[in-house]
Amino acid sequence: MSFTEAYGVFSVDGSSPRIGFASGEAVHDLRALADAGALDHGGLAEVCRADDLLPLLAAGPEVWSGLRSRLADVVGSVETIALDGVTMHLPFPVRDFVDFYSSIEHATNLGRILRPDGEPLLANWRHLPVGYHGRSSTVVVSGTPVRRPAGQSRPDPAGPPVFGSSQMLDFELEVGFVTGGPDNRMGEPLDVSSAEDSIFGLVLVNDWSARDIQAWEYQPLGPFLGKSFATSISPWVVPLAALSSFRVPGPVQSPPPLPHLQASEPRGLDLSLEVWLRTPSMSSPVRISSTSFAGVYWSMAQQLAHLTSNGAVVGAGDLCASGTVSGAGPGSEGSLMELTWRGSRPLVLPNGETRGFLEDGDEVTMTGWCGDVGFGSVVGRVVGLS
Amino acid sequence: MSFTEAYGVFSVDGSSPRIGFASGEAVHDLRALADAGALDHGGLAEVCRADDLLPLLAAGPEVWSGLRSRLADVVGSVETIALDGVTMHLPFPVRDFVDFYSSIEHATNLGRILRPDGEPLLANWRHLPVGYHGRSSTVVVSGTPVRRPAGQSRPDPAGPPVFGSSQMLDFELEVGFVTGGPDNRMGEPLDVSSAEDSIFGLVLVNDWSARDIQAWEYQPLGPFLGKSFATSISPWVVPLAALSSFRVPGPVQSPPPLPHLQASEPRGLDLSLEVWLRTPSMSSPVRISSTSFAGVYWSMAQQLAHLTSNGAVVGAGDLCASGTVSGAGPGSEGSLMELTWRGSRPLVLPNGETRGFLEDGDEVTMTGWCGDVGFGSVVGRVVGLS
Repeated sequence: MSFTEAYGVFSVDGSSPRIGFASGEAVHDLRALADAGALDHGGLAEVCRADDLLPLLAAGPEVWSGLRSRLADVVGSVETIALDGVTMHLPFPVRDFVDFYSSIEHATNLGRILRPDGEPLLANWRHLPVGYHGRSSTVVVSGTPVRRPAGQSRPDPAGPPVFGSSQMLDFELEVGFVTGGPDNRMGEPLDVSSAEDSIFGLVLVNDWSARDIQAWEYQPLGPFLGKSFATSISPWVVPLAALSSFRVPGPVQSPPPLPHLQASEPRGLDLSLEVWLRTPSMSSPVRISSTSFAGVYWSMAQQLAHLTSNGAVVGAGDLCASGTVSGAGPGSEGSLMELTWRGSRPLVLPNGETRGFLEDGDEVTMTGWCGDVGFGSVVGRVVGLS
Repeated sequence: MSFTEAYGVFSVDGSSPRIGFASGEAVHDLRALADAGALDHGGLAEVCRADDLLPLLAAGPEVWSGLRSRLADVVGSVETIALDGVTMHLPFPVRDFVDFYSSIEHATNLGRILRPDGEPLLANWRHLPVGYHGRSSTVVVSGTPVRRPAGQSRPDPAGPPVFGSSQMLDFELEVGFVTGGPDNRMGEPLDVSSAEDSIFGLVLVNDWSARDIQAWEYQPLGPFLGKSFATSISPWVVPLAALSSFRVPGPVQSPPPLPHLQASEPRGLDLSLEVWLRTPSMSSPVRISSTSFAGVYWSMAQQLAHLTSNGAVVGAGDLCASGTVSGAGPGSEGSLMELTWRGSRPLVLPNGETRGFLEDGDEVTMTGWCGDVGFGSVVGRVVGLS
């Protein structure tokens, strides 16, 4: 694991949490840098002494770019801590968490699995980035164990519902972005052409999903307890400003979106993504999915323009995730639901084990990178219900 | 408007916001009381000097009851401020906002309107309190103007979607509860029998809804922009502890819920609710709905047990709303969608005006009371898109 530039919250040897800047395999303690007077420019010291990224997020693009150029000068000349020696914490308190559904391959796969006799894509899908609100207080940092949820489901569609531990626990490979700067005024949407100015950076997201709970609960108001037990994010936030050379044209949108969602190119991002699985009997993980964020239909700017088109407020600490990122070919699907076609075609692992859905003790690791810019990983291990 | 006991955040003559305790038509400044040494017992002073209710919410039931009995001793012997002379603020920052769908009359009405050929109640409805996450950052205090949202809709079901201001703006009459005390441990559900211990108090909620935006967006992930532009709450939080003499048996639940949702009686609350409308040409409002919270199918304890059954965390600052409260008879429906049957039977107001949905300048006021315990009101006026 190596970074070009990324921000996170770390502690070391039981210290209090503080902001770190990762570069290569080293972590720079920004509180120490601020205390040493190395960040006495344009309000940088204050936001760098905080316990988490929220003040930096709130400070907005001018401070973000000021800090970025200042750190470029400082890095290399100061003491650092080894990346593998730090404990990572949730980088910022999540205000509102929105989960989109922006991969056409994922939405099509789900449509085929859940509504085999109908059109896989619903009528609205190509006209707006479908999304919903998730639970912000169960967004957790990578490494947090994920307890298998209990819940209601109806395993026999003609029988009564039952309550018990989920038998269809899944992951979802997603990319999230974190917004900052001042809130837009309530009632005043962000314009799609400048919406990215509100994005501080990106994280990897595992939107754990209990498919049996979700299937029984989700009509008519959408996913709730099938998702709200845990959502894991990678601890290092990669600034969007560090990714400008990896922007690529997005997929053709047909029909063209309505004017408020028409984004200029390059709206895509060439971010490679992988999912690795390690069962309790495996000594090392195996890759089970490999895909790219570049092909995702709805862009981050379009998601933000849509989210605020009704006047809703976004600002520091809001997290928006892409929805499951799936590619077109076999092995590029971002969930077990798709990789195993709802468990009907279990994965056969190199040691002969099979998996339709996740079992207790399974560890899921998602990684991402744009060329030489690493995103690190988001890891979570499933713990059984006691 | 008169209170027995309620907590809110107020300012007066441009002062900084502080916690107030309302009793009768008087507001007690709890910061001033703390500064005067009147609250030097059991950690009361610290939470009462805060800018909002969050520290009090976090302090938990022992502090809540300690403050309640202390204030009972103090009230009447100290200076107060007239209720009508204060400016009210959002009483606490909302962490996660969950909106349930717990009135069987409302869910049945919506089913009949939206799916006239099917069973009005979906298969899961009687087995669990259906709910979803709303947007916490657009929960606003009573009195905040509500901008008519823009959004995508498809007025002609055979035609393309259009973007413009909502033509079907509605209110929803709801009751919300605010939780507090320490968070449950992630992965460890609240037990239905003690879940109410986590409830600090209740507010009235107007869950503004744009029916045309909602109809086009909500499949398959539920309501999003049709709701997230604004949710108004009443400024005074009435402690649940003040309502014990108004508890009543809930409606019979058939089939009986699964064991984790079986709540002991009395699970209901005899809370009377009204909706009043004033159009720009009316000098005083007219009552357009009158109903009761007592008949709501799923209780607050059942909602909390369900919400945490998968291990999700609740604690200080979480807001859960009931969903629209509708009664069985005409004039007891909690939304214009139902009162006018999706606009097809417009209300005729005393001055001859008609309303299918809300027009610019319309002011909606919701009030509630349990016997002599007032909840005050939640008011909002619709402002046109400029």
